[in-house]
Amino acid sequence: MVGRRIRACQTVLDAMNREHMDKQLVITDVGPRDGLQNQPGILSVEQRLQLIAAIAAAGVSSIEVGSFVSPKAVPAMAGTDAVLASLPAGDLHYTVLIPNMRGYELARAAGARSVTMVLYASESMARKNVNMSIAEADEATAAILASAAADGIEVIATISVAFACPFDGATDPGVVRTSAARFLELGADRVVVADTIGAANPQQVRSLTAELVAEHGPGQLGCHFHDTRAMGLANVYAAVESGIRRFDSSIGGLGGCPFAPGASGNVATEDVVMMLEQMGFDTGIDLDALLRASDLAEELTGTAPGGRAKAWLKPWLAKRAG
Amino acid sequence: MVGRRIRACQTVLDAMNREHMDKQLVITDVGPRDGLQNQPGILSVEQRLQLIAAIAAAGVSSIEVGSFVSPKAVPAMAGTDAVLASLPAGDLHYTVLIPNMRGYELARAAGARSVTMVLYASESMARKNVNMSIAEADEATAAILASAAADGIEVIATISVAFACPFDGATDPGVVRTSAARFLELGADRVVVADTIGAANPQQVRSLTAELVAEHGPGQLGCHFHDTRAMGLANVYAAVESGIRRFDSSIGGLGGCPFAPGASGNVATEDVVMMLEQMGFDTGIDLDALLRASDLAEELTGTAPGGRAKAWLKPWLAKRAG
Repeated sequence: MVGRRIRACQTVLDAMNREHMDKQLVITDVGPRDGLQNQPGILSVEQRLQLIAAIAAAGVSSIEVGSFVSPKAVPAMAGTDAVLASLPAGDLHYTVLIPNMRGYELARAAGARSVTMVLYASESMARKNVNMSIAEADEATAAILASAAADGIEVIATISVAFACPFDGATDPGVVRTSAARFLELGADRVVVADTIGAANPQQVRSLTAELVAEHGPGQLGCHFHDTRAMGLANVYAAVESGIRRFDSSIGGLGGCPFAPGASGNVATEDVVMMLEQMGFDTGIDLDALLRASDLAEELTGTAPGGRAKAWLKPWLAKRAG
Repeated sequence: MVGRRIRACQTVLDAMNREHMDKQLVITDVGPRDGLQNQPGILSVEQRLQLIAAIAAAGVSSIEVGSFVSPKAVPAMAGTDAVLASLPAGDLHYTVLIPNMRGYELARAAGARSVTMVLYASESMARKNVNMSIAEADEATAAILASAAADGIEVIATISVAFACPFDGATDPGVVRTSAARFLELGADRVVVADTIGAANPQQVRSLTAELVAEHGPGQLGCHFHDTRAMGLANVYAAVESGIRRFDSSIGGLGGCPFAPGASGNVATEDVVMMLEQMGFDTGIDLDALLRASDLAEELTGTAPGGRAKAWLKPWLAKRAG
């Protein structure tokens, strides 16, 4: 009798827990990497740390803080080792982008605990970005995964141009699914599906993410959208409907890709948080503090690229407070 | 044997027809009404006709061309009778907004074949807009429906603040459902669910529109979104997922509501058409010509409120053509 009651309580608790989990979302702010790498001006290490601190102060628990790429190709990311060395210790999740094994070694030497490796869903993009074929880039990632497993470093595998490529056109969803399955199998901690050039439409997103969630569950999946064609939030919503609970976004909508013509800013963190919170999700992020970080991003970069809801959010938050 | 083959062919044809119908979408451009009524400058009748002609030239088959409201309250809509009198004859669907029976009579006298009547899902909005209670406004609509049936004039019933009201907060979806059911029953040709202040999130939209489509089918339903919080396209997508196939939008994202604080532009026609066409829907609209209409809207009003995808669309269309 008591056993039955305990089991009944457990069932209710499990259901509540599932519902609670289902409302939890993780935002990774990629502004300090994807955002800054494409700005006309170059920020100092101190300024980059200031921006990261402002984003963290808003409650963003995961931040892509820089990349270990050639400083000649992407001068804005030089000094990422110094950024990593000066990050405040704590529970925050920091990751850095790496293009290849050399980048991995630099990241490891700089003390990175998580790296984000880029995979390619189109041959032309692989060739332009890292001068490799898809197969060669995949081999590089497999080698990095093996090293990272030995080093105890987390690897996030981001599949770029997962919906469309500026050179090769529409991406075959089958290529993305095969790649996701292979790298999760090989030990990637997470696979992020990236609409690098902001060309995806929500129907495409819904379809591909539904298949990926059906195959792997939502735990190890994430999405990365740009707002180039104004469909950024529609795509986030479509992915949420498929069960995706991890999203990349960029403070103030900073962003782009120096090697992908037509790519504009990432979907803005403040827009994503506003929509998801309004839909009843829990991002753990404070919108007031986030807008302060967005203002700082504008101030530091001298650009005001996005955060499309900001004009509405600012007076609304002020009124709510007053 | 032949009979069986004919039946089999008919089944295939029916399925193809259903699929074809499901990909057909109707856009009503409300720029010449919802757009222009909220601009700082007032356009002449000739300029309004010029804008309507440019929108029609892009293949938009349904246009809200003006309103019969008090010219003291909304001076930009004075002369809608002259606009109606000068519209080119043809297959296009023109409608005019009316606030009450007086507006209906003026519209009928001016030769309108379709009127759009506003209903209210919140008491405060009804009071502010037409100085009536919801019940009084509903009675006025019922009386108009009776007259219109006798006059052979189409009535579109738009339920305003269907998701949130700037005065009363969140709207009870039950109120909207009851209102939609009542006015379809009373003979309204269509019910449009309007997010007057651009406060809806896609989850809310998905839920309410799914219920409405389940109750009435998609044929007599439409949606009207504003892009105030950058969720315009996400809301269009959510409604499409529920089966909605009719949308209001405004050329260049012109728009707002003079009586609803915080309301900004309608979702831009060019953004909506771009997304829906990319999703495989057939709007019958030519994007190049639509962007010319959007440029004209900017030129005539001296404002550049929206059409957020325009910066991307213009070079893309030019490249595609060249």
